[in-house]
Amino acid sequence: MKDQKPGEFDLISSIRRQKQPLPKSILQSIGDDCATIDSSLLHRLVISTDLLVEDVHFRRAWTSPHLLGMKSALVNLSDLAAMGANPVACLLSLGLPRTDTAEFFDNFISGFLRTCREAGMPLIGGDLSTARQVCISVTVMGTVPEGEPLYRSSAREGDSVLIIGDLGYSRYGLNFLESHSLPGLSDVKVLTELELGTDDPEVIKAVGRHLLPEVHLESAQWLRREGMANAMIDVSDGLGNDLMHILEESHVAAEIDLGQLPGLAGVGEEERIDLALNGGEDYALLFTASAIQLAQLTDRYPGHLPPWKKIGEITGGAPELVLNLRGMRSIYSRKGYDHFQ
Amino acid sequence: MKDQKPGEFDLISSIRRQKQPLPKSILQSIGDDCATIDSSLLHRLVISTDLLVEDVHFRRAWTSPHLLGMKSALVNLSDLAAMGANPVACLLSLGLPRTDTAEFFDNFISGFLRTCREAGMPLIGGDLSTARQVCISVTVMGTVPEGEPLYRSSAREGDSVLIIGDLGYSRYGLNFLESHSLPGLSDVKVLTELELGTDDPEVIKAVGRHLLPEVHLESAQWLRREGMANAMIDVSDGLGNDLMHILEESHVAAEIDLGQLPGLAGVGEEERIDLALNGGEDYALLFTASAIQLAQLTDRYPGHLPPWKKIGEITGGAPELVLNLRGMRSIYSRKGYDHFQ
Repeated sequence: MKDQKPGEFDLISSIRRQKQPLPKSILQSIGDDCATIDSSLLHRLVISTDLLVEDVHFRRAWTSPHLLGMKSALVNLSDLAAMGANPVACLLSLGLPRTDTAEFFDNFISGFLRTCREAGMPLIGGDLSTARQVCISVTVMGTVPEGEPLYRSSAREGDSVLIIGDLGYSRYGLNFLESHSLPGLSDVKVLTELELGTDDPEVIKAVGRHLLPEVHLESAQWLRREGMANAMIDVSDGLGNDLMHILEESHVAAEIDLGQLPGLAGVGEEERIDLALNGGEDYALLFTASAIQLAQLTDRYPGHLPPWKKIGEITGGAPELVLNLRGMRSIYSRKGYDHFQ
Repeated sequence: MKDQKPGEFDLISSIRRQKQPLPKSILQSIGDDCATIDSSLLHRLVISTDLLVEDVHFRRAWTSPHLLGMKSALVNLSDLAAMGANPVACLLSLGLPRTDTAEFFDNFISGFLRTCREAGMPLIGGDLSTARQVCISVTVMGTVPEGEPLYRSSAREGDSVLIIGDLGYSRYGLNFLESHSLPGLSDVKVLTELELGTDDPEVIKAVGRHLLPEVHLESAQWLRREGMANAMIDVSDGLGNDLMHILEESHVAAEIDLGQLPGLAGVGEEERIDLALNGGEDYALLFTASAIQLAQLTDRYPGHLPPWKKIGEITGGAPELVLNLRGMRSIYSRKGYDHFQ
């Protein structure tokens, strides 16, 4: 190479060299103007895109390119989970500063492709550019091979409100990272071995959740396949915000029992509830189920999957979320993160 | 609103209020975790994504948000054209600085949706974030309703190399913008009325091509549908670079006649050829056709579409591009833009 710096085509070639197993439905992967999918094999195709911007969604000092690559794929997989879909393929666009391009790229891609491989979601296209901040745009495609996806708009009065996964840890971990100066994170260390300067298991779990969210893809697919949920969403902006999305799209109200929220142990009640309602980046699975579905869920939900928990009920009336704390009722008002306010 | 600044949800709502006609295949648009497509209706789905970054791909001083919105959709439509596909839908992620957010957003979206409307390509999802530079990530989906898309890899020895559209104008227009201080571009002015400080029609055409490329979607669809092309690509990185993509993916060589390139009038031969080979952002359609296809093309190519022109031949041997200027042969070496070099 002219000046030892990798070019755009070198970076793309390095991805093409990492052979990815392609399902029968992918007819053309990286290397043409578009990728091609045999659409007739897929029944329903679901598609979503997320933009992650340095110093807005992440700080490079608090993670490693490898972990960032994994998280970029994971948060997008969570959108497929929210529909109950199976991953099909993804696209990745990267804007990268000119410094450390090759090293950042190699480590990021190895993490990204690792998660893609584990999820059975090959990378089939994308774009590269320089940029002042790292910016990461991921588009994921999934399929619902029969029936329909689980929408936000299908909650019905009388449904139970159920959750899989925990709430508030990611934000608590972010708060910890913001207030502590950390040693650089290695690409190979597992998170439980991180030198966080504390042996508090809740802190270690919280930082871990923030850097590498747990995505409940298998649970979501089971719920959709077995017809065990009416409406579903992933909790990415705090439980309050995301449950409000279900209520608004379904034209219903809800009441939840704050005592039932799967939040952190070891913090005060007020903080625990605030983190759960407004924390964000939990990637828990929030769904509603009728009485019949709930009974079947109790009987048939697979024991090897993370447990579900009932936290409230869908009620009639205009979209509104009632918070019940030991019989004291209040109305939730949005506090989730808004980029522009 | 708390502080008169629009929030993320206000911006998304403003898009949802602009009703877009949805084809039967789009089952769920903006408003859920994913959009849903009835995949079984589409035969082949082709998908592509482009990232446009401020001060890398465009300067805000040289365009308007409205024109930038149109161009962002157009350059992605060109990737669908390169496959001979019909547009189905698109996704848009925007990273925007906190200043002027609402005004930029409204004008950008009105331009983007205008081009989407004209192309029959509804916007069905996306993401928003703050960012230091404007960054625009567009994902487009198209369909080939029968048969297969036109790939880069299908050129055969003996094919003619053909082109639709012109070369070098966009780069010449960019060079003009770089070297002149322009009045602010209005959102409503048509480009021929621009106050460019010159009445040179080639300059006016060149600046117009740079700000609003001509995309040859209808020609591309006709070529694919009628089986009139073997390999196809859109010229986005200069004719040399993009023809090399065809040669590399098809494992063939080519010779082109530099005297036949559809470049600018009114500049010297050397500059005309350099702009055509290495300029970029032309969005001309480059394709190869066998002798039989060429004969049919001569007979049947619709008169209302921009004309095609033969510029060379596919030959055997290792991927290599021979440039022929009045009988003098030389080998093309890549000079197209590389983000990281």
